[in-house]
Amino acid sequence: MEKRARVLIDCHDAKGLVYQLSKVFYERELNIDSNREFVDQENGRFFMRTVVTGLFEQAELLQALQEVAPKEADIRVIVPKPKKIILMATKESHALGDILIRHADGELDATIECVIANHDTLEHLVRRFDIPFFHVPTEGLSREEHEKHVMNLIDKMAFDYIVLAKYMRILTPTFVEAYARRIINIHHSFLPAFIGANPYKQAHQRGVKIIGATAHFVTNDLDEGPIIAQDVIPVNHRQEWRDMQRAGRDVEKVVLSRALSYVLNDRVFVNGNKTIVF
Amino acid sequence: MEKRARVLIDCHDAKGLVYQLSKVFYERELNIDSNREFVDQENGRFFMRTVVTGLFEQAELLQALQEVAPKEADIRVIVPKPKKIILMATKESHALGDILIRHADGELDATIECVIANHDTLEHLVRRFDIPFFHVPTEGLSREEHEKHVMNLIDKMAFDYIVLAKYMRILTPTFVEAYARRIINIHHSFLPAFIGANPYKQAHQRGVKIIGATAHFVTNDLDEGPIIAQDVIPVNHRQEWRDMQRAGRDVEKVVLSRALSYVLNDRVFVNGNKTIVF
Amino acid sequence: MEKRARVLIDCHDAKGLVYQLSKVFYERELNIDSNREFVDQENGRFFMRTVVTGLFEQAELLQALQEVAPKEADIRVIVPKPKKIILMATKESHALGDILIRHADGELDATIECVIANHDTLEHLVRRFDIPFFHVPTEGLSREEHEKHVMNLIDKMAFDYIVLAKYMRILTPTFVEAYARRIINIHHSFLPAFIGANPYKQAHQRGVKIIGATAHFVTNDLDEGPIIAQDVIPVNHRQEWRDMQRAGRDVEKVVLSRALSYVLNDRVFVNGNKTIVF
Amino acid sequence: MEKRARVLIDCHDAKGLVYQLSKVFYERELNIDSNREFVDQENGRFFMRTVVTGLFEQAELLQALQEVAPKEADIRVIVPKPKKIILMATKESHALGDILIRHADGELDATIECVIANHDTLEHLVRRFDIPFFHVPTEGLSREEHEKHVMNLIDKMAFDYIVLAKYMRILTPTFVEAYARRIINIHHSFLPAFIGANPYKQAHQRGVKIIGATAHFVTNDLDEGPIIAQDVIPVNHRQEWRDMQRAGRDVEKVVLSRALSYVLNDRVFVNGNKTIVF
Repeated sequence: MEKRARVLIDCHDAKGLVYQLSKVFYERELNIDSNREFVDQENGRFFMRTVVTGLFEQAELLQALQEVAPKEADIRVIVPKPKKIILMATKESHALGDILIRHADGELDATIECVIANHDTLEHLVRRFDIPFFHVPTEGLSREEHEKHVMNLIDKMAFDYIVLAKYMRILTPTFVEAYARRIINIHHSFLPAFIGANPYKQAHQRGVKIIGATAHFVTNDLDEGPIIAQDVIPVNHRQEWRDMQRAGRDVEKVVLSRALSYVLNDRVFVNGNKTIVF
Repeated sequence: MEKRARVLIDCHDAKGLVYQLSKVFYERELNIDSNREFVDQENGRFFMRTVVTGLFEQAELLQALQEVAPKEADIRVIVPKPKKIILMATKESHALGDILIRHADGELDATIECVIANHDTLEHLVRRFDIPFFHVPTEGLSREEHEKHVMNLIDKMAFDYIVLAKYMRILTPTFVEAYARRIINIHHSFLPAFIGANPYKQAHQRGVKIIGATAHFVTNDLDEGPIIAQDVIPVNHRQEWRDMQRAGRDVEKVVLSRALSYVLNDRVFVNGNKTIVF
Repeated sequence: MEKRARVLIDCHDAKGLVYQLSKVFYERELNIDSNREFVDQENGRFFMRTVVTGLFEQAELLQALQEVAPKEADIRVIVPKPKKIILMATKESHALGDILIRHADGELDATIECVIANHDTLEHLVRRFDIPFFHVPTEGLSREEHEKHVMNLIDKMAFDYIVLAKYMRILTPTFVEAYARRIINIHHSFLPAFIGANPYKQAHQRGVKIIGATAHFVTNDLDEGPIIAQDVIPVNHRQEWRDMQRAGRDVEKVVLSRALSYVLNDRVFVNGNKTIVF
Repeated sequence: MEKRARVLIDCHDAKGLVYQLSKVFYERELNIDSNREFVDQENGRFFMRTVVTGLFEQAELLQALQEVAPKEADIRVIVPKPKKIILMATKESHALGDILIRHADGELDATIECVIANHDTLEHLVRRFDIPFFHVPTEGLSREEHEKHVMNLIDKMAFDYIVLAKYMRILTPTFVEAYARRIINIHHSFLPAFIGANPYKQAHQRGVKIIGATAHFVTNDLDEGPIIAQDVIPVNHRQEWRDMQRAGRDVEKVVLSRALSYVLNDRVFVNGNKTIVF
């Protein structure tokens, strides 16, 4: 039966790659529905995302591609199906709520496994959507102890991505490394401006005329991970920082959902500390 | 000696195209610096723009590509060199001036052959840049007679594109067909809103909160040609239509220059009444 | 006890108006927290929105302002309290869901009286938020009969605004006039481009490079009412009309919520077929 | 004879200010064409910009306003006339050229007194516009010595503002203080992101998805002065830093010209390290 695959390749650049790879598709009589390539000339790396349809066996296709690509190549042959995500939040509902609505609407190509929060503020909202909610309070716990509780929960589930929908706690290297390249965060500023706490207050104090939001993969360096998506809105002198915060929420939720959509559709490559979004 | 070519292909979609075409590059040991493809599924058309470097003979490469592509394929092998453009204007200097400054700065990959205007208002400005200026007045002439004078001028020159930098006269089908797909216009609205005369007055009267500009290829249908680039800026109730006009000029000139840059870099395909910009 | 009022004045422009009006505030020792004025020179109209705090009696303040303003002046002294809104929807959940989340979050300065829909698709979602949902099916009913059912529902409730959160039916003049200037609609295009049915299909067909959404008051002329807010996002040739639709939803919901926030904060004046948003 | 004045007031906030000030206008039978106020609640400061027309004597009007305003009030009664500006540049022509074109077009409400540059690269361009060009080379000079030469030039001229149209040298405190609040700079990043050298390289390295430009008053803290205007454009992984630079130039010139237009129209107040733009 005809099926569809997203083929993602990330390797050293080499002459003839496109030819060799397209030959594999050609020999299997696969249709190329879309094809995006990018060569990072500076670092000599090649990235390709091809959507093919036809008759193929996933493992065989992967192996054939591996045979023609450089040895170190990272090749994925993905037959699209909904990914599993875990949401983490604190008290604010706008980013989380936006994802819940999209999920309820069937717009998100994902299933939400659960919501984990360090406060119970959002429990009522989450339960409205019949999504499991786990409250992991921080009281009396060290950062490490709290995270251990969270990780115990997470590790019981199969999942593809952890989405920090305004999770307002810093994660330890242990946590970050355990789920490397699988944690997506929304930061409420136009990074790298206003790293750290209360970026809206910082923005107000600096008197900027534009504010923004940044969705990025989480790494050990606070707010320094590979950026997936950003957007901005104009502000003016009449806006107190709380007005900026209110206005900024719309950007935050839209940027997070946009980044999430890219990731769920396997459109994102991580290239050092940057992303390639096809 | 190593050289670079932009290869542009526009043809019916067919299985194996990418393979067949990349094989041609592979056999000649050409490097693929960048490669963009798009399949218009609705109309079954395939578009590709590939930049290759290496040792090749332009005519031979073209022929080899023609042999593997469908018969009706439109294939171009372009070894980049500055294109020749003719500017047409009326009285307003912002769009024209922007192009003149870019040209003087060496930023534009083009030579300006001349400026043709139906008023002499801009002569002084153009002469500052040592560019030939031709004033073709309209007084006492029918539209056809006036255009005949303009065409006489144009036809004496070798050129790639005619850029209407706020040329405020409607062109006849004769003119448009003579230079089909080679005339670029900037329209001072976010098309298809406010087609026709004084779009800023129309925008003001309608009370829109955003205005824009549109660069497009000129066809016989007024302001209906394939759109190359668009951009917008916010406006508010405090702005009279003249304020909108003033603010809009910055969008016009930036959008026109952006479109021009796409065209000069052979990044634009015309697909029916749309464009593909790689 | 100190209280706060929003004073809104809309009248013919006249010399000394600011002086006369500010004198009224001054004599009552009211603090002016913010003050916005606009004179529509073309039509000779004056608009003012002043936020005052202090000790005052609402009716007395109104009367004092009426005495110094032109006779035909439309003056409102509003002591802020949550407004009552009725939502109308069809099948799409993004705009409705966004408002429900904001409401649940306490972000909206309004109470949602109910949701009225011509399909029952959204009932489940609305019930999650404990908001009354009325399904008024259209089967077997003329447009007038259907609207009569809707109006019967509406007229039993006290409300300030009707918000059409993607209500995909055209309203009759009877309906529109019954609630003049109190119906807010979100149109899924950058008006006046793509009036009418399926603007995303129209946009795709026209090959635009930007799409948008428009929130406006509903009048008898389809999609021609006073515009409250607009926004846009870039699109490209790779997006089918359904991709544009998906991307456009984020703009729609943000623009509708922005317009709603303006209206709920009494920041909007209607001036002929335009709005003034302070 | 009727004339027009821009009245600008910056003082401690106090009850009755609007009343007292508008009374002055009222008693002189002046028409208020437009009026903008802002109260910085945090710092208790009041800002007003009023455009009045009628019969008045400038000094008398100023005195009358001073009598009713707080003692420390900074009050200006400006009868509009073209301001005098000095441009400073280095080698890049886009920002400078944009201002020259606007000036030649009569669009700028200013006269350009001269251009001062530390290289002679732009001399040819400037001379095309019959504007005096002074080349002040830096070779063999300390920063202080070079600036002394520049200041000697500047101090011979009457001027309102110095516009740094991509002047790529850091100014000493001596220079900055000599012309405090009169120096406008364009920085080629979305401040406070990427302060300092080569922001496009920094932006490319950080992998941002949006770049921008910032026009600000120059203070002693590098790139830290009050921001007047900002704007942004999207970028992607395909753009090398030089592509970002090229794309960024359009933002730079538009933002600088926008800021300049605000300043030339006396629409900008400096409020601590921020601006209020009416």
